[in-house]
Amino acid sequence: MARTRVGIINVTGYTGVELARLLGQHPDVELVSVTGRSMAGKRLGQVFPHLSQLDLTITEELDSSVEFVFSALPHGESATRLAPLVGRGVAVVDLSADFRLKSAAVYAEWYGTAHPVPELLKEAAYGLPELNRTAITSARLVANPGCYPTSALLALAPAWREGLLDSDIVIDSKSGISGSGRSPSLDTSFCEVSEDVTAYALAGHRHLPEINQELTRLEPKITPRVCFVPHLVPMSRGILSTCYGKLNKKLTAEELRQRYVDFYWNEPFIKISQSPPHTRDTQGSNVCLIYPTIDERTSRLIVVSCLDNLVKGAAGQAIQNMNLMLGFRETAGLEAPALYP
Amino acid sequence: MARTRVGIINVTGYTGVELARLLGQHPDVELVSVTGRSMAGKRLGQVFPHLSQLDLTITEELDSSVEFVFSALPHGESATRLAPLVGRGVAVVDLSADFRLKSAAVYAEWYGTAHPVPELLKEAAYGLPELNRTAITSARLVANPGCYPTSALLALAPAWREGLLDSDIVIDSKSGISGSGRSPSLDTSFCEVSEDVTAYALAGHRHLPEINQELTRLEPKITPRVCFVPHLVPMSRGILSTCYGKLNKKLTAEELRQRYVDFYWNEPFIKISQSPPHTRDTQGSNVCLIYPTIDERTSRLIVVSCLDNLVKGAAGQAIQNMNLMLGFRETAGLEAPALYP
Amino acid sequence: MARTRVGIINVTGYTGVELARLLGQHPDVELVSVTGRSMAGKRLGQVFPHLSQLDLTITEELDSSVEFVFSALPHGESATRLAPLVGRGVAVVDLSADFRLKSAAVYAEWYGTAHPVPELLKEAAYGLPELNRTAITSARLVANPGCYPTSALLALAPAWREGLLDSDIVIDSKSGISGSGRSPSLDTSFCEVSEDVTAYALAGHRHLPEINQELTRLEPKITPRVCFVPHLVPMSRGILSTCYGKLNKKLTAEELRQRYVDFYWNEPFIKISQSPPHTRDTQGSNVCLIYPTIDERTSRLIVVSCLDNLVKGAAGQAIQNMNLMLGFRETAGLEAPALYP
Amino acid sequence: MARTRVGIINVTGYTGVELARLLGQHPDVELVSVTGRSMAGKRLGQVFPHLSQLDLTITEELDSSVEFVFSALPHGESATRLAPLVGRGVAVVDLSADFRLKSAAVYAEWYGTAHPVPELLKEAAYGLPELNRTAITSARLVANPGCYPTSALLALAPAWREGLLDSDIVIDSKSGISGSGRSPSLDTSFCEVSEDVTAYALAGHRHLPEINQELTRLEPKITPRVCFVPHLVPMSRGILSTCYGKLNKKLTAEELRQRYVDFYWNEPFIKISQSPPHTRDTQGSNVCLIYPTIDERTSRLIVVSCLDNLVKGAAGQAIQNMNLMLGFRETAGLEAPALYP
Repeated sequence: MARTRVGIINVTGYTGVELARLLGQHPDVELVSVTGRSMAGKRLGQVFPHLSQLDLTITEELDSSVEFVFSALPHGESATRLAPLVGRGVAVVDLSADFRLKSAAVYAEWYGTAHPVPELLKEAAYGLPELNRTAITSARLVANPGCYPTSALLALAPAWREGLLDSDIVIDSKSGISGSGRSPSLDTSFCEVSEDVTAYALAGHRHLPEINQELTRLEPKITPRVCFVPHLVPMSRGILSTCYGKLNKKLTAEELRQRYVDFYWNEPFIKISQSPPHTRDTQGSNVCLIYPTIDERTSRLIVVSCLDNLVKGAAGQAIQNMNLMLGFRETAGLEAPALYP
Repeated sequence: MARTRVGIINVTGYTGVELARLLGQHPDVELVSVTGRSMAGKRLGQVFPHLSQLDLTITEELDSSVEFVFSALPHGESATRLAPLVGRGVAVVDLSADFRLKSAAVYAEWYGTAHPVPELLKEAAYGLPELNRTAITSARLVANPGCYPTSALLALAPAWREGLLDSDIVIDSKSGISGSGRSPSLDTSFCEVSEDVTAYALAGHRHLPEINQELTRLEPKITPRVCFVPHLVPMSRGILSTCYGKLNKKLTAEELRQRYVDFYWNEPFIKISQSPPHTRDTQGSNVCLIYPTIDERTSRLIVVSCLDNLVKGAAGQAIQNMNLMLGFRETAGLEAPALYP
Repeated sequence: MARTRVGIINVTGYTGVELARLLGQHPDVELVSVTGRSMAGKRLGQVFPHLSQLDLTITEELDSSVEFVFSALPHGESATRLAPLVGRGVAVVDLSADFRLKSAAVYAEWYGTAHPVPELLKEAAYGLPELNRTAITSARLVANPGCYPTSALLALAPAWREGLLDSDIVIDSKSGISGSGRSPSLDTSFCEVSEDVTAYALAGHRHLPEINQELTRLEPKITPRVCFVPHLVPMSRGILSTCYGKLNKKLTAEELRQRYVDFYWNEPFIKISQSPPHTRDTQGSNVCLIYPTIDERTSRLIVVSCLDNLVKGAAGQAIQNMNLMLGFRETAGLEAPALYP
Repeated sequence: MARTRVGIINVTGYTGVELARLLGQHPDVELVSVTGRSMAGKRLGQVFPHLSQLDLTITEELDSSVEFVFSALPHGESATRLAPLVGRGVAVVDLSADFRLKSAAVYAEWYGTAHPVPELLKEAAYGLPELNRTAITSARLVANPGCYPTSALLALAPAWREGLLDSDIVIDSKSGISGSGRSPSLDTSFCEVSEDVTAYALAGHRHLPEINQELTRLEPKITPRVCFVPHLVPMSRGILSTCYGKLNKKLTAEELRQRYVDFYWNEPFIKISQSPPHTRDTQGSNVCLIYPTIDERTSRLIVVSCLDNLVKGAAGQAIQNMNLMLGFRETAGLEAPALYP
């Protein structure tokens, strides 16, 4: 059977290059086209030596034979570039933020600009397979979730959907530096971030409306009041989210754990841990580790989740979405265990 | 004027060796005796090359001429060893947990053993100068606070003492690895902790009762309900605590900030930041950086504080306490700026 | 076709667990047995969460059905444990140092103990496929090379075999911390090794006689005089060796480069780089990157090589050897690109 | 006594800001003026929070009252800017490369541009106090050495000056990332350099002619043939140089060690180590640790030296030079021990 011809728009960032790494090993697709304006004309292996076995040249435009497209463009630009492809019937996973928010008004509020193609918002499926698999399976346009929302929503969904929680939620997330992208800046320079932890975006991070939207969809009867604070920690990959909520039902930690196990019982990429998980155990893999517990002194739910921000938080999840959209095995190309240590 | 003769019991851990670094530069004291059972007989500079300029040999017992003692022993052992010294009238700062909790019952509950000298608990002053300066100044026995409580209490005190907060508090702390001590273990091995973040002690960390006790003392009318989750991040030094509370008064972020500035206006080691602080800016120094703000969407107070766990969170604060106890300038020996980068 | 049943003796070190990661994905073998004394009885995924998808329990003894064995035991112990297996005709790759040196006397000199089974030394093939493929292919017992010798020999072989070099060689190697093993020690504690570089074993590292033996075998007419100094750098994986020799022929850097390209033209795991290589580009992969050049001012050859010490320097090379011994495709199970970043 | 008024040109790089940290604590000088074009108008503590206790505003031009100037400008620019100051009789330490090379021709060859003020070259003293103290003491213009040459020359000088070595030298240096400066670039981004080691400048690093020049000055009878390869390792501060030479005399490691001890017996900043030194033990301090030994198998001298590239390799050495030039105690302001861990 001929393998599906796939392409990546903007392969030169960390998300794009991680897509290339994973797609290059995928049994059901052939990566045939990768674009990147500044590096156009160079061999992929010249810019990224670890991919020199992929026989690809970076081009300015996508090859027209491509049947499935991943976009790793920045927001704004991505929607504009994808709209014609979607119009032509090419299936697409957008890794930018452009199709995550259902409301063009909310988009404008958080991204400071009108949405370029608001008419497509309705059509886009939110690409968190564990919570939205049906819609993804039949979609032509999937909005790949943000890395923070993926970790937070997977951590909270079982408790939230069952109505175990008050509306007040605190999400304290810790991210590796690759989440800030590959463009050089003082904020991601080794000497600035090593031996450092810091919080940022305290006035409101763009992933907050996404979290609120999806929590509301999971359980429309409660309006979430989420306080979300992201942090940067000195590592390349990984996000760990510690989520705090008030339990409105009495249950034991073991009962809680069992609900999480049941909720995700059939999910290949979700593991309910027996102890607080380590981001290191997710490095390079599409797994999300979740540890739910209860602080008995304060009747609080605490859920710790972790994942690799470039895999389950970006490229891996995008491929999981593609697998669903194209009818492949959901885990195809995503089965390699994490790299440890 | 003759300088005060000081000694360190158990110099060989990270807290003890940091005491030696700082005391060796202190203008008003002379470090004359350092103990350490396993390394007894060795020159200090043999074990710790950066201290080879200090002309000291590690001994098993403290020199009897010592007028002021720092104990960096583990809890339990520390109280037992210090009791006779206190009895003889030697002034002491204990860096272990032994004299932090006022209640022997609470101590027994959290440390799993009866307190060795409960009769001394009353006498001990809790050594957080910014919140308890008067008591420290006249004390002979000071309990140096834990690193996490120092960061959390300094972050919360202004809002808590003014009654701005509901009783429910979340403290999410991120610590460097030196907080786990110098004894080798898999949990602090480079390959295990680099490229890793994890939460721990979710069933209750021993610093929690200390935080509750001191919040209660600050404002006895409210019973704090604190949910405290510590995390380990891949750096050597530093703690950043992100503290979340519900505001019960309406005020702006700027008003809040002003209250923090006023509260700490005369404190040499507290800096109210204009933006979220970086642990890197505290490396090696006794400063605590605090950034208070308000999440307007959820009416939550968020305070981010950071410090060097080995300095303001341990050895530096111990020296600050000594300065108060001995009538030295409070900043003596603690004025060096942080090492950056 | 039934897949070959393989086992790992001592799965609990970094080498053993890396073997498990790679063998678990190998298309032609089935990992059926993993041993480890201290952890016997535990599920593999309990000790190493990233391997929880492998359905294996750690046992004390190897399952008797195993057809191919990898030993990741310490030297001395390994030979003793493997001898009966070899006697029974089980094919073996030994990742310890026990069968690397051809001379029992040299072994005794460097390892401080008599070789447990000197009669097997003759039979063992030195498992560096690029330099010894024929012998490996027909061997029943393969001695997997040390990580440093692998990087140094691959770097030097083309020039050395062609007689381009004087006998005097300097090899300055920089290794990540995982090379020191998984047993906790102060020397591998995060706070000791982060922000640190150091040289060690200046009186002679055990990998030196191995390098000398193999250089001699490559070109018996010259007695190598190798000065080898290993260093530890603060990263988990990776070795970079900078090798210096005196050229005894006049040739340009480009001619030199071409000889290296020719020498390794058909090698799937060797890449001759166009610029100094980065260990990061080998992380998790079996590739060895080599950059040969000439310092024209001093007529010196400089060759920089790098690889992942746990893959091409240990587990990956062991599997490459197995592939040759069992007649599989040489790259089977070893095709995944490096993890970047 | 009035303290000398000092200024820093270009305070905003890592060298400049380290000068500010150290000068702010110096007992004999007052830091009164710091310049930096892009940040002119800002408070120093706004850009560098760890220096907020210094009451200084960054200006475009140096205050005219300044009596002593440090330049941390890039080469080329520095000489141009300093020439008029030197002309007016202001004493100067230049931390750029502009006055290190005695020959304008060699400068032009390595820096690709004619020297802006060749007439000043003669006047400049090479600022390595341990090897050139007399000249520095009477100089008005001191060229602060490069970080690599400092580590290499201090390591080699005792053996080289005594004629113990053949002309062929290999210097393999490992540097932390701060040596690459503070301007953001992909090459210093956290995700690119963490978990990575690489060699660079194999065609010739600009510090090579400086090393050759000074070795020649130390012992004019031998023409050094130095092969120098710098490497980047994932840490912020520190350089470790491993230097290899051929001994032309028979002597034991202990005799060699004694010669090093004698050579540096009176030097406050040089420590001859008993074992291979760690860069971590120099962090933030002006010390250089040196470990000389002999590889008996190959009759090679191996000397390992390490220092903090921003202190003894830059700002600290500059202040040591100033102390000599102004007749202060040589160690003034430089006595703080390293920060460990």
